Amino acid sequence: MAAQSRQVRIGMIGYGQMGRIHAYAYRAIPIFYDPLPAEPVLQAVADVVPGVAERAAARAGFSWHTEDWRRVVESPDVDVIDICTPNSEHLPVLEAAIAAGKHIYCEKPLCTNLKDAQRILQAATKAGILHQIVAEYRFLPALMRARDMVREGLLGEIFHFRGLYLHAGYVDPRRPIAWRLRREATGGGVLMDLGPHIIDQMRVLVGNASEVQGNLETFIRQRPLAERPNEMGSVDVEDSAQALLRFPGGAVGSLEVSRCATGAEDELRVEVHGSRGAIRFNLMDPNWLYWYDLGKPEAERGFTRVATVQRYPAPAVAPAPKFSIGWTRAHVASQFSLVESIASGRQPVPSFADAVAMHAHIDAIYRSAAGAGWTAVPHVE
Amino acid sequence: MAAQSRQVRIGMIGYGQMGRIHAYAYRAIPIFYDPLPAEPVLQAVADVVPGVAERAAARAGFSWHTEDWRRVVESPDVDVIDICTPNSEHLPVLEAAIAAGKHIYCEKPLCTNLKDAQRILQAATKAGILHQIVAEYRFLPALMRARDMVREGLLGEIFHFRGLYLHAGYVDPRRPIAWRLRREATGGGVLMDLGPHIIDQMRVLVGNASEVQGNLETFIRQRPLAERPNEMGSVDVEDSAQALLRFPGGAVGSLEVSRCATGAEDELRVEVHGSRGAIRFNLMDPNWLYWYDLGKPEAERGFTRVATVQRYPAPAVAPAPKFSIGWTRAHVASQFSLVESIASGRQPVPSFADAVAMHAHIDAIYRSAAGAGWTAVPHVE
Amino acid sequence: MAAQSRQVRIGMIGYGQMGRIHAYAYRAIPIFYDPLPAEPVLQAVADVVPGVAERAAARAGFSWHTEDWRRVVESPDVDVIDICTPNSEHLPVLEAAIAAGKHIYCEKPLCTNLKDAQRILQAATKAGILHQIVAEYRFLPALMRARDMVREGLLGEIFHFRGLYLHAGYVDPRRPIAWRLRREATGGGVLMDLGPHIIDQMRVLVGNASEVQGNLETFIRQRPLAERPNEMGSVDVEDSAQALLRFPGGAVGSLEVSRCATGAEDELRVEVHGSRGAIRFNLMDPNWLYWYDLGKPEAERGFTRVATVQRYPAPAVAPAPKFSIGWTRAHVASQFSLVESIASGRQPVPSFADAVAMHAHIDAIYRSAAGAGWTAVPHVE
Amino acid sequence: MAAQSRQVRIGMIGYGQMGRIHAYAYRAIPIFYDPLPAEPVLQAVADVVPGVAERAAARAGFSWHTEDWRRVVESPDVDVIDICTPNSEHLPVLEAAIAAGKHIYCEKPLCTNLKDAQRILQAATKAGILHQIVAEYRFLPALMRARDMVREGLLGEIFHFRGLYLHAGYVDPRRPIAWRLRREATGGGVLMDLGPHIIDQMRVLVGNASEVQGNLETFIRQRPLAERPNEMGSVDVEDSAQALLRFPGGAVGSLEVSRCATGAEDELRVEVHGSRGAIRFNLMDPNWLYWYDLGKPEAERGFTRVATVQRYPAPAVAPAPKFSIGWTRAHVASQFSLVESIASGRQPVPSFADAVAMHAHIDAIYRSAAGAGWTAVPHVE
Repeated sequence: MAAQSRQVRIGMIGYGQMGRIHAYAYRAIPIFYDPLPAEPVLQAVADVVPGVAERAAARAGFSWHTEDWRRVVESPDVDVIDICTPNSEHLPVLEAAIAAGKHIYCEKPLCTNLKDAQRILQAATKAGILHQIVAEYRFLPALMRARDMVREGLLGEIFHFRGLYLHAGYVDPRRPIAWRLRREATGGGVLMDLGPHIIDQMRVLVGNASEVQGNLETFIRQRPLAERPNEMGSVDVEDSAQALLRFPGGAVGSLEVSRCATGAEDELRVEVHGSRGAIRFNLMDPNWLYWYDLGKPEAERGFTRVATVQRYPAPAVAPAPKFSIGWTRAHVASQFSLVESIASGRQPVPSFADAVAMHAHIDAIYRSAAGAGWTAVPHVE
Repeated sequence: MAAQSRQVRIGMIGYGQMGRIHAYAYRAIPIFYDPLPAEPVLQAVADVVPGVAERAAARAGFSWHTEDWRRVVESPDVDVIDICTPNSEHLPVLEAAIAAGKHIYCEKPLCTNLKDAQRILQAATKAGILHQIVAEYRFLPALMRARDMVREGLLGEIFHFRGLYLHAGYVDPRRPIAWRLRREATGGGVLMDLGPHIIDQMRVLVGNASEVQGNLETFIRQRPLAERPNEMGSVDVEDSAQALLRFPGGAVGSLEVSRCATGAEDELRVEVHGSRGAIRFNLMDPNWLYWYDLGKPEAERGFTRVATVQRYPAPAVAPAPKFSIGWTRAHVASQFSLVESIASGRQPVPSFADAVAMHAHIDAIYRSAAGAGWTAVPHVE
Repeated sequence: MAAQSRQVRIGMIGYGQMGRIHAYAYRAIPIFYDPLPAEPVLQAVADVVPGVAERAAARAGFSWHTEDWRRVVESPDVDVIDICTPNSEHLPVLEAAIAAGKHIYCEKPLCTNLKDAQRILQAATKAGILHQIVAEYRFLPALMRARDMVREGLLGEIFHFRGLYLHAGYVDPRRPIAWRLRREATGGGVLMDLGPHIIDQMRVLVGNASEVQGNLETFIRQRPLAERPNEMGSVDVEDSAQALLRFPGGAVGSLEVSRCATGAEDELRVEVHGSRGAIRFNLMDPNWLYWYDLGKPEAERGFTRVATVQRYPAPAVAPAPKFSIGWTRAHVASQFSLVESIASGRQPVPSFADAVAMHAHIDAIYRSAAGAGWTAVPHVE
Repeated sequence: MAAQSRQVRIGMIGYGQMGRIHAYAYRAIPIFYDPLPAEPVLQAVADVVPGVAERAAARAGFSWHTEDWRRVVESPDVDVIDICTPNSEHLPVLEAAIAAGKHIYCEKPLCTNLKDAQRILQAATKAGILHQIVAEYRFLPALMRARDMVREGLLGEIFHFRGLYLHAGYVDPRRPIAWRLRREATGGGVLMDLGPHIIDQMRVLVGNASEVQGNLETFIRQRPLAERPNEMGSVDVEDSAQALLRFPGGAVGSLEVSRCATGAEDELRVEVHGSRGAIRFNLMDPNWLYWYDLGKPEAERGFTRVATVQRYPAPAVAPAPKFSIGWTRAHVASQFSLVESIASGRQPVPSFADAVAMHAHIDAIYRSAAGAGWTAVPHVE
C-alpha cells in the first residue's frame, strides 16, 4: 500500500467490537473513495488484554502492537489516536493524547460526565489538536440527506421531533453485570450508551433543546455478577430513559432510549414534522429516507421512499449507488471524513464541542429525572 | 326488516360526520353478524340545523326526525340515545337522557372536563341506565387481539408503552377557528379530541397510569375566524400534547397526540414491550398486529404480522376473515356490542366509568403541563 | 326510507357470502354518497336453500323473498337482477332476466366459458338492457387512481405488467371437493375464480393482451368428497394458473393466480413499469398506491405512498378521506356506480363486454396450457 | 499482516466495479471472521487499461500489477485467479488459468454460452483445480437461512417459486451501447447479466427446473453508440426476460429479469410457497427473511420478519448480529468461503458445475423464446 503522497497514521487504543469495526473501516476507505485525500495507515494498536493487540495486528495489519496504550500515544509515528476503550477509560487516554499533541478520534460518549467533557474540550482547543467524536449516523446517507433537507428549508418550520434508539440486549435477567451495567465504568446506563447517537441526530436536525423533562427506569434491578455468576448484584444504571423536549424555536419533541425494548434489534428511529413537510427514518431499513412534501400538489403527496445510498457520501465510488448498505458503511464514511479533515488541517465535524453538547443534554435529563422537573440544557459553547 | 323478537330502538342526537357513520354501522350490523341478539332500529334523529335531520331520515331510514333533541330523548319509542353532537353539547343531552331513563351511547369525550364527567357517571349509575362511551378502536380486530395477548400474559411483565395519535388537519394556517378550535365548545384541543382514543388503548393494554408529566404546544396561535374569515382570532387550545407516563407496576410510557403532524393521515400507533414479547400496531395498516414472541426459539423470533381481521369480532359472518377491513368496521363492532349488551341487560364496555378514566388522565396531563410537574392521575373509580 | 324521486329496485338471486356483501353495499350507499342519483331498494331475494331467502329478507330488509328465482326475475316490481349464484347457475338466470328485460348486475365470471359469455352479451345488447359485471377492484380508490395515472400518461409507454392474485384456502388437503372444485359447476379452477379480477386490472391498466402462454397445475389431485367425507375424489380443476403476456404496444407481462399460495390472505398485487414511472399495489395494504415518478428531479425520486382513500370515488361523503378502508368499500362504490348508471339510463362499466374479454383471456390461457403454445387472445368486441 | 500459517494468494484479472468490490471483500475477511483458515493476500492485479492496475495496487494493496493478465495467470506466487473482466473475456483467462493449474474464482456468467461453459467445467475437473463461480447471494444471511429452512423441510412440498431481479439502469434511451449491450461481448442481455443470480437462487431453493417457457423483449432497440454518441446503433440483446418454470417434483414457478423496471434499484425478490410454509425476500430489505409457518397454531400464524444478519454466516465476528448489513457483506462471505475451501483443499460451492447449470437454464430460455415452446432444461451434470 503506497504511492499516496500523504498518510494519516492511526494508533488505536482498545480493540474490542468497536476497535475491530474501526480497523475494518480504515481498510475499506482506499477502495471506496476516489480521490483519496490521504492514505489511512493502521500504524499501532494497544489493548490491555494480553494477546489481543498482537492478534489485532496480525489480522488487521497494524504495523506494531502493545499492551501499553501510553506507548502508542507517545509514539512519533502516530498521527491520530483512535479511542475504543470503555467510557471511563477515555479520560486518561484523552488527556495523554492531548498532551502529546495527537489528533483524536474518540468513541462516544466522550467522558462519563459533562464536567470532564468540558475540561477535555478546553484542553483540546488550547492544544490546537483536531478532534472528532464518533457519531457515525451523521454519515449514513439517509441521515445526511435528512440533514440537508432540513437545512434547505424543505421541512419549513419544525413542529415535532421524535427520536428513539431501542435495543433489547438487557431483557434477559440472566445477563450479568459487566462494565456497561456499572456506573463507575460508564457514568450512566442506556442514556450514556445510546443517548449520544439520538441526541446527536436531534441536534443535527432541530438543534439543541432548550429544556428537557426526563424519566428513568431500571426494570431489572438485580442481576448476576459477571465475575461471580452465582452472586446477585444491584444494577446502578438505568435500562430506559425518556425525555420531553422543548426547543428555542417553538418545536416540541421527545427522546427515548432503552436496552429492554423486547423485539428491537438496533432500532434508531427519527421522525420530524414541519410546516412544509416531514421525514421518517428507521435504522432497520437504513437505505431509505421517507419524505413527505407538503409543497407537492395534493394528488402527489405521500411519504416517498427516497433512495439515498451512496448519493451520499461523495466522493465514494463503491459500492454503486443502487446497492443496499448497512451499519458498517457509516463508519467508513465517518472515518473518511476524519482522514479528509486531518489531511487538510480542518477541524472535523462532529467535534468534541458536539460531544460536550451531547453530555449537556444527558446531564440535564439526569438532573430532571432526579427531581428537578423541567430543566434547562446548559449552554456549553 | 322484521322477524326479530327483540329490537333496540336508536334515537340519534346530532347528524354530522359521526352521526352518519353511526347510522351506517347500525345498518351494517344485521348483515355482518349472526346470530343477532336484537335488531337495531333507526327510530329517530334530531339535529338543530334545519333540514339535516329530515335528510338523514330519508337517507338512513330513521322512522322520524326533529330539530328538537328533547323530543327524541323524551319519546317512549326510543331505547338508546346516541349522542353525536360537539363536546360541549353532550352535557344537557346526557342529563336529559339519564332523567328520562334512556340508555346512552355517547361519542368521546363524554364531557369537557373531569368534574362533569364524574357527575354524569354518578347520575347514570344512580338511574340504573346502561351506558357506553364510543371508543371504537377497542373493537378493531388487531387491537382486540392485542388486548387478549396482554391478558393471556403473552407479553409478560410490561416495560414500555408508546401511544401516538397523529393527524395533520391543522397544519394549514388558513384553517379557520371553528368549534374544534374553541375551548368553550370542546374543553381542550387535540388532547380532548384524539387523547381519549390513545388513553383508552393505554388503559386496555397496560392499565391506568399512576403519574404523568405533560407538555402542550400551540404552533399556530392566530387563525382566521370561521364566521369572519377576514378577521384573525386567537386559538385557545393546544395543537400538540405529549406526556411521559409511569405505571403502578413499574412500566414507563409516553403519549403523543397532534393535529399538526404533517404527513399523517389517521395515524394511531401503539407499541408495547414486555419481558416475554412485544406488539406494534398502526391504524394506517389496520388489518395486522405485529407480534414478537420471546418465547419462540431464537431462530424463529421476529415480528410476526398476525392476521386479525374478523377472527375478531365474533360472531361476525362478513366479510370473510381473509379480507381487508377499515375504520368503519370498528364502529360496526362497537355498536354490535352495544346492541348485544342492551339486549341482554348487561352494562356495556367501555362504559362511562372508562370515559371518566379518560378524563382523569386528560385532567392530570393538563395540570402537569400547566406547571404541576409529575402529577398523580386522580383515582376515579 | 323515502323521499327519493327515483328508486332502483334490486332482485337478488343467491344469498351466500357474496349476496350478503351486495346487500350490505346497497344499504351503505345512501349514507356514503351525496348527492344520490337514485335510491337502491332491496326489493326481493331468492335462494334455493330453504329458509335462506326468508332469513335474508328479515336481516337485510328485502321486501319479499322466495325459493324460486324465476319469480324474482319475472316480477314487475324489480328493476335489476343481481346474480350471486355459483358460476354454472348464472346462465339460466341471465337468459331469463334478459328475456324479461331486466337490467343485470352479475358476479364474475359471467359464464363458465367464452362461447356462452359471447351469446349472453349478444342477447343483452339486442334486448337493450343495461348490464354490469362485478369487478369491484375497479372501484377501489387506489386502483382508480392507478387507472387515471396511466390514462394521463404519467407512466409513459408501458414496459412491464405484473399481476398476481394469491389465496391459500386450498393448501389443506382435507378441504373437501365442493362446487368450487368441480369443473361442471365452475368451468375451471382458480383461473375462473380469481382470474377475472386480475385480468380486469390488466385490461384497465395496459389493455388486452395480444398473446398468452399459459401453465396450469393441480397440486392436490385427490380430496375428500364434500358429500361423502370418507371417500376421495379427483379434482378436475387447477389450483394454480400462470401466463406470460405480450401486448400489442410492445409491453410484456405476467399473470399468476393460485389458491395454494401458503401465507397469502387475499393478495391481489399489481405492478406496472413504464418509460416515465411505475406503480405498485397490494390489496393487503389497500389504502395506498405506490408511485414512482421518473419525471421528478433525481433527488426527489422514489416510490411515494400516495393516499387514495375516498379521494376516489366521488361523490362519497363518508368515511372522511383520511380514514382507512377495506374490501367491502369497493363493493359499495361498484354498486353506487350501478345505481347511478341505471338511474341515468347509461350503460354501466365494466359491462358484459368486459366480462367477455375476461373470458377471452381465460379461454386463451386454457388453450395455451393445453398445448397450444403462444395463443392469440380472441378478438371479441 | 502476518502470523497466519497459511496464505491464499489472489491474482485478480480486471479491476472495474467488481474487481474493486472483490478487493474490498478480501481486505474485510481477516477482520470479520475468527478463526481464519488462511490469510487472503492481494498478490497481483492485471487490467488492460493503462494505469488501472497500478492504481489498484496502490489503493487496495496488491503486491504487484501488470497490464498483461497472462503474467498473473502464469506467476508462481499466485494461488487463485479471480476473474472480473467482461463476460466474453472470461474464456481465454479460464483456459489459461486451468492450464496453469490455478484455482479460479470467476464472476458470473462463467462463459457466454452453455457449450463453452461445459467445456471449461470438463477442463477444470480434469485439471483437478478448485473453482468457484461468484453467486454472492448464496452468502447473504437471509438467503442462507432460506436455503436451510427449505432443506430442513420447514416449507414442506414446494408449490410455487417466484424469482425476480429488477434493475432500471437501461430505461433512459440515451444510455449508449457499451459492452453490456453487445451480444458479442456478453452472449446475451439481461438474462445473461442478472439471470445467473436468480437462477442460482431458484436452484438453491427448489432445484433445477425441468422445463421452461421463455419470453424476451427489447424495449429500446436503437441507442447512441458509446464510441460515436451522435450515431445510433441497434441493440442486439434483450432488456427483459421472463420464463414460466416446471419442476420435476410438481412445483411451478416463474422468473423475470429486467433492466427497464423503472423505479427498481437492485431488486432481487424471491418467494416460495410450500405445503407447510412460505418465505419471501427482497434485496432492498436485505436484513430480513419473511417466513410463514403453517405449522404454528392458527392464532400465531403470519409472516415473521426473521432477523438473519450475521446469525449467518459463522464464524463471523463482525459486525454484531443486531446490525444491518448490505450487499457488500455477501461478497465478504462468498470470498471467505472461497478462502476456507482453498485452505482445506475442498471444492468450493457454488462451483463451475453450478455455473454450467445456470447456463443450461439460460440456454433453454433463449431457445424457448426463439420459438421452441416449452423447452427441457439440458441435463448437464
